[in-house]
Amino acid sequence: MTLSQGRHYLAIPGPSVMPDEVLQAMHRPAPNIYEGDLVETTHTIAQDLKWVARTVGHVAMYISNGHGAWEASLANMAQPGEKVLVVANGRFGQGWGEMAREMGIETEVLDFGMSAPADPARIEEALRADTERRIKAVLACHVDTSSSVRNDVPALRAAIDAAGHPALLAIDCIASLACDRYEMDAWGADVTLAASQKGLMTPPGMAFIWFNDRAAGARTRPLSRYWDWAPRANPEYYYQHFGGTAPTHHLFGLRAALDMLKSEGLEQVWTRHETLASAYWAAIETWSQGGPMRINVSERAARSRAITSVHLPDGQGERLRLWCSENLGVTLGIGLGREPREDWFRIGHMGHVNAHMVMGVVGVLEAGLRALGIPHGEGAGDAAAQALAEPAQALSRAAE
Amino acid sequence: MTLSQGRHYLAIPGPSVMPDEVLQAMHRPAPNIYEGDLVETTHTIAQDLKWVARTVGHVAMYISNGHGAWEASLANMAQPGEKVLVVANGRFGQGWGEMAREMGIETEVLDFGMSAPADPARIEEALRADTERRIKAVLACHVDTSSSVRNDVPALRAAIDAAGHPALLAIDCIASLACDRYEMDAWGADVTLAASQKGLMTPPGMAFIWFNDRAAGARTRPLSRYWDWAPRANPEYYYQHFGGTAPTHHLFGLRAALDMLKSEGLEQVWTRHETLASAYWAAIETWSQGGPMRINVSERAARSRAITSVHLPDGQGERLRLWCSENLGVTLGIGLGREPREDWFRIGHMGHVNAHMVMGVVGVLEAGLRALGIPHGEGAGDAAAQALAEPAQALSRAAE
Amino acid sequence: MTLSQGRHYLAIPGPSVMPDEVLQAMHRPAPNIYEGDLVETTHTIAQDLKWVARTVGHVAMYISNGHGAWEASLANMAQPGEKVLVVANGRFGQGWGEMAREMGIETEVLDFGMSAPADPARIEEALRADTERRIKAVLACHVDTSSSVRNDVPALRAAIDAAGHPALLAIDCIASLACDRYEMDAWGADVTLAASQKGLMTPPGMAFIWFNDRAAGARTRPLSRYWDWAPRANPEYYYQHFGGTAPTHHLFGLRAALDMLKSEGLEQVWTRHETLASAYWAAIETWSQGGPMRINVSERAARSRAITSVHLPDGQGERLRLWCSENLGVTLGIGLGREPREDWFRIGHMGHVNAHMVMGVVGVLEAGLRALGIPHGEGAGDAAAQALAEPAQALSRAAE
Amino acid sequence: MTLSQGRHYLAIPGPSVMPDEVLQAMHRPAPNIYEGDLVETTHTIAQDLKWVARTVGHVAMYISNGHGAWEASLANMAQPGEKVLVVANGRFGQGWGEMAREMGIETEVLDFGMSAPADPARIEEALRADTERRIKAVLACHVDTSSSVRNDVPALRAAIDAAGHPALLAIDCIASLACDRYEMDAWGADVTLAASQKGLMTPPGMAFIWFNDRAAGARTRPLSRYWDWAPRANPEYYYQHFGGTAPTHHLFGLRAALDMLKSEGLEQVWTRHETLASAYWAAIETWSQGGPMRINVSERAARSRAITSVHLPDGQGERLRLWCSENLGVTLGIGLGREPREDWFRIGHMGHVNAHMVMGVVGVLEAGLRALGIPHGEGAGDAAAQALAEPAQALSRAAE
Repeated sequence: MTLSQGRHYLAIPGPSVMPDEVLQAMHRPAPNIYEGDLVETTHTIAQDLKWVARTVGHVAMYISNGHGAWEASLANMAQPGEKVLVVANGRFGQGWGEMAREMGIETEVLDFGMSAPADPARIEEALRADTERRIKAVLACHVDTSSSVRNDVPALRAAIDAAGHPALLAIDCIASLACDRYEMDAWGADVTLAASQKGLMTPPGMAFIWFNDRAAGARTRPLSRYWDWAPRANPEYYYQHFGGTAPTHHLFGLRAALDMLKSEGLEQVWTRHETLASAYWAAIETWSQGGPMRINVSERAARSRAITSVHLPDGQGERLRLWCSENLGVTLGIGLGREPREDWFRIGHMGHVNAHMVMGVVGVLEAGLRALGIPHGEGAGDAAAQALAEPAQALSRAAE
Repeated sequence: MTLSQGRHYLAIPGPSVMPDEVLQAMHRPAPNIYEGDLVETTHTIAQDLKWVARTVGHVAMYISNGHGAWEASLANMAQPGEKVLVVANGRFGQGWGEMAREMGIETEVLDFGMSAPADPARIEEALRADTERRIKAVLACHVDTSSSVRNDVPALRAAIDAAGHPALLAIDCIASLACDRYEMDAWGADVTLAASQKGLMTPPGMAFIWFNDRAAGARTRPLSRYWDWAPRANPEYYYQHFGGTAPTHHLFGLRAALDMLKSEGLEQVWTRHETLASAYWAAIETWSQGGPMRINVSERAARSRAITSVHLPDGQGERLRLWCSENLGVTLGIGLGREPREDWFRIGHMGHVNAHMVMGVVGVLEAGLRALGIPHGEGAGDAAAQALAEPAQALSRAAE
Repeated sequence: MTLSQGRHYLAIPGPSVMPDEVLQAMHRPAPNIYEGDLVETTHTIAQDLKWVARTVGHVAMYISNGHGAWEASLANMAQPGEKVLVVANGRFGQGWGEMAREMGIETEVLDFGMSAPADPARIEEALRADTERRIKAVLACHVDTSSSVRNDVPALRAAIDAAGHPALLAIDCIASLACDRYEMDAWGADVTLAASQKGLMTPPGMAFIWFNDRAAGARTRPLSRYWDWAPRANPEYYYQHFGGTAPTHHLFGLRAALDMLKSEGLEQVWTRHETLASAYWAAIETWSQGGPMRINVSERAARSRAITSVHLPDGQGERLRLWCSENLGVTLGIGLGREPREDWFRIGHMGHVNAHMVMGVVGVLEAGLRALGIPHGEGAGDAAAQALAEPAQALSRAAE
Repeated sequence: MTLSQGRHYLAIPGPSVMPDEVLQAMHRPAPNIYEGDLVETTHTIAQDLKWVARTVGHVAMYISNGHGAWEASLANMAQPGEKVLVVANGRFGQGWGEMAREMGIETEVLDFGMSAPADPARIEEALRADTERRIKAVLACHVDTSSSVRNDVPALRAAIDAAGHPALLAIDCIASLACDRYEMDAWGADVTLAASQKGLMTPPGMAFIWFNDRAAGARTRPLSRYWDWAPRANPEYYYQHFGGTAPTHHLFGLRAALDMLKSEGLEQVWTRHETLASAYWAAIETWSQGGPMRINVSERAARSRAITSVHLPDGQGERLRLWCSENLGVTLGIGLGREPREDWFRIGHMGHVNAHMVMGVVGVLEAGLRALGIPHGEGAGDAAAQALAEPAQALSRAAE
């Protein structure tokens, strides 16, 4: 018997909360896949996906998860025997590199640990050392979901340019797109990856690659028709958008999600995530003042606005997480890529998320800390509320 | 531009939040209304409705709202020219009495204001004075939705018995059923009323009357086939359950809602509401210590476990309510039956509600108070969390 | 094991098939009932309901089924002790009269059997005989669902006028609205009744009464607040639309249904029903040529365009109906108001119905007749197809 | 203005009609992807997928469409530079071969045209000629969706065995699984492919590969982690089932679809498809007697039970198809892989399909032929009904 028998809140770092509009749009009969609504809808989705990533380049849509997008990006950027430079700030950066190696691509991994962003100087140095220009691409996560570290993409671009190296800059925005500010063209990314189930608020099952003309030109035809981004981005026939049957229901869901983002406005979406993240930070920093809880990433600029990784030692992290899930109606994300895993948990605050959802998690964690007798500073609820009050008031004023 | 673009929480005193299970169950083709699933489902619903009200008596189901149930109960309990005694603790008690008068039934109204429960002594006195036994029924709200006052039903029963009066005791449980503890048979209620959209977590459109054998015997055949409870409770043909076509989709939704209640357990449902209400009380009492906010009902035993009416003078109540709705993702209930209305708001915490939803409202109100510069005591979030932590821990322990 | 494991078609005379758009619109969180979308939606529904009934009069919406609308109409048209003239062509006409008697209203019933429309001369005669003008209203079904007989409403009006009688003309369009042509104002009906679950394609749970100024003026204030049409049609406060809590989810469903009707066009809706009905008639008349099956109503003009009652003696009707339901994926309506019931079945072809659905039923009945060895004429499928081909071709040509 | 304003029937060869149960199951909040329901559900799905394919082997699930399954199967069966033997009876067989070539795999294509099944003797001959054993696999569609030709899988197995060749037998059952009888183990297939959107009645977005121990042993580790079937079939960690994030909503939909299949029984599912197909054949053969319409595949045993490709020359095929779609509520499949395309159409009768749906299409085509003045034999509806009546009666008798 518990206090959890209401609308459960899944606050993990993806899949995020699916809006009713998205689920409704997916609850429909199968459409004709050769003509009509679906074809029109697909075209508008492609346009609006470019709007979300702030690019005038190309976009390829895949029926796959984010790992599929990793493989697809590699298949188009490098042949077996060629090389990529991997920027790692957590498990997902490492995973992208592992995938490259399984595809026969050589990797050089720059590991920046799990609590700090990449140091552009080391990237520049590595590229300068590649005098034979064997490195075809620099792979980096905008945000690594496992650590909640956020990299400075323009700084990565600057490092490549400073080295005068032709490598493509490929950015994994799976955890950040439509949450953290991201401007593909202005920031100089050549390739961008994302998936449906985070900031895009649609069930897992689709992934996306945006690429600019430079990346299109650098492409060596992959030994895979499925991953080849060229026909998907610029198809002659409709079915080539998806290299076969279209993901009909996902497309209608995604259309609804994009409508919501467009209606809110991209700058507004980013500000909302920024503000809500700051409420979590205020709460956790308050708890930190009277106990062992810590935010993983100390530098504010290097923190994801969509995920917060939290350290709570002696297995208390997992204990608190489980207790809130079973008793209070919130499921937080498990630690990933850390040892011991039980000392970490992660809060997802991406996509369809508002002040009520965030303040509820702060309140639930407060109740959990008290119920489990975990030492912590007082007043986290007030601190989080204060973090929302001022910007919310400002936003509200601006709207008048 | 706001912080509200997530799952909006409608925290009004009904309709309450509809569980996904209920909405899913209603998203289905029309069923045959003469045989099959629907007929079986209706039978199990009737049984389980008795379980919810803790009675072995009869239950009549209506396609109507709660006001329909008022009219139905009156049609079966009193003829034009007869009399009822109305116990009022707010607008809904008054409304039931007004409806009686429009039906030509004489009323005697005992008004206990909007912040205190009924005084049984006055009821006993009124009944004793009715030496001609013209009063056919005593009408009382278990909880009046407008004021959040909760009456002591066994005490009402005792008052009637002490007066030795044959009047039926009719209780409006529209706002309390499946939230506040209610035991129709043990407490001596003869007639009970409820509707679908509050503790029963189903969209508005159905209402219910339970009646015991004594009430069945006292019934004078009403000048209405639609409201007549006899064929509905004990139909010869299926269609008589609803005096015509059954409310097919509501029935499937209600079945899902009853399944959830049965799976949780009625005692557990009551304890959950009790505990969650105590978190709101703790928060508001904390705010009260540093500002003008007050809970309407001061006596704990007389407070609804499903609604809390709050006073915040100088129009600040409505201002806060609107601000939270527009900016933070929570819609609270407006003041009802108070002047000026803008000095009041009401929080619904009925039905499908858990710790996360409640703590989120506490956090949102804290942010709103700060954003609007309304004076208030500090630490409401901590106080509410403390109110949950101890019982939740106890519940959790008991479950092991 | 059967051939029925696909999308089952419920072809009963209501509830009809609910469009996906309607069910989707109902699959949504509870709305605020005091402001916002719901309030706007309700206003547009009231307007469009008048459009459907072709009236500039008033419309009252009820949370009830069709029987509730009967009671509501009576409550506003006649007091206990007053009188109504009941035109009966089946069980539902009779039922409306029974309801009047239970409300203490005197009835004079003109019974025209179950296979023919009302004879206006008998109505005129009855009204002329009412020299004291005790008859307050003439009650008639436009179509009686039990018999599928359709009355000639303008002829009823003419009969009343010819008698120079002030009685209101009240028409039950529950089974015909948005199926058969109906023009309330042009045809001189004073009061019209309908419900949500037939031509309006929304689950059972709402009913409607339209009334003109003459009926409004004739109203004697009813001894019921729930049925009183005045505040519902012209409310001061929103809640008065429904005499209490609004049927939130039904309203959103009904809005979607009205959108579909408006998009198709009312004349087109009527023509579609007319044409589809003619396909059923062609099929049954073909079967009739070689066996005992008969359409109940022989005169074409007197046949409903939404229901067809069919006679198949010796219990073969029910046997065929059950066999198709269990084995072939179609559920037809049972006989109603006939003895023996097993010699009759009814086909619903109302609301969300197209050529495929109708031709499928024709094919299924053909298979059933063959499987059960029931004698019947050959070529019903061809005859039904021919009935569709010519008008469909014409419609198609007109659209070019 | 048309006769199509009802429940539209999409009778294309996939995506097929999604049952309400499947769409309902997908209309739910995102689940936790690390523990709980989803994990349990995935395990039962894997088991039941083996039941559907009648194998005790392994099954790998992919987030992809059917073309993805082609690529996945090839990636596990052959390296670049190795060879496969392609059995083609239409565009999809050819397409699988093209995909192999794009992956650097050499192909030998045996083309059997588009109206006849594969001749096992030619396969045996080709394998005997491969004295160096360079052919790693024989690829064949059980049913080619473009032509509706069905191959005799046991005969293919026998041909390979007769040649004494070690090549794997890989069967594309995308269009046939859970429609046509298929027994992977008993028939000696080593590898089987399918996708979610046909007999499995779930939206496009998942594909499946079953493989036996022999195929598992023959696998050369592919240069792709995404397509590698080994970790998907036998994962150490849950996420390996899908090589990353699970397709959460599809899994719940697929679970519902499998429940329906299990409840009906696999033999019953096959018999239902066989019987319904025979009704289409009877109708078309009747039309053929008086006009130019022809079933593509003349030999009954070589006809798909899930798709029927139909020839109607002089562009009348497409004209009829469009007319039925716009006017009568049925959308048929376009011709695929034929010239001129406008002389062909295809009827999908796969998955969630029953007698009503089929007979409705027969009736609609009859109406279309008449409306467009296309010559055709009379009595198709009667012939189709007769084809259903006898088996349906037998089935019904057997169930008693």
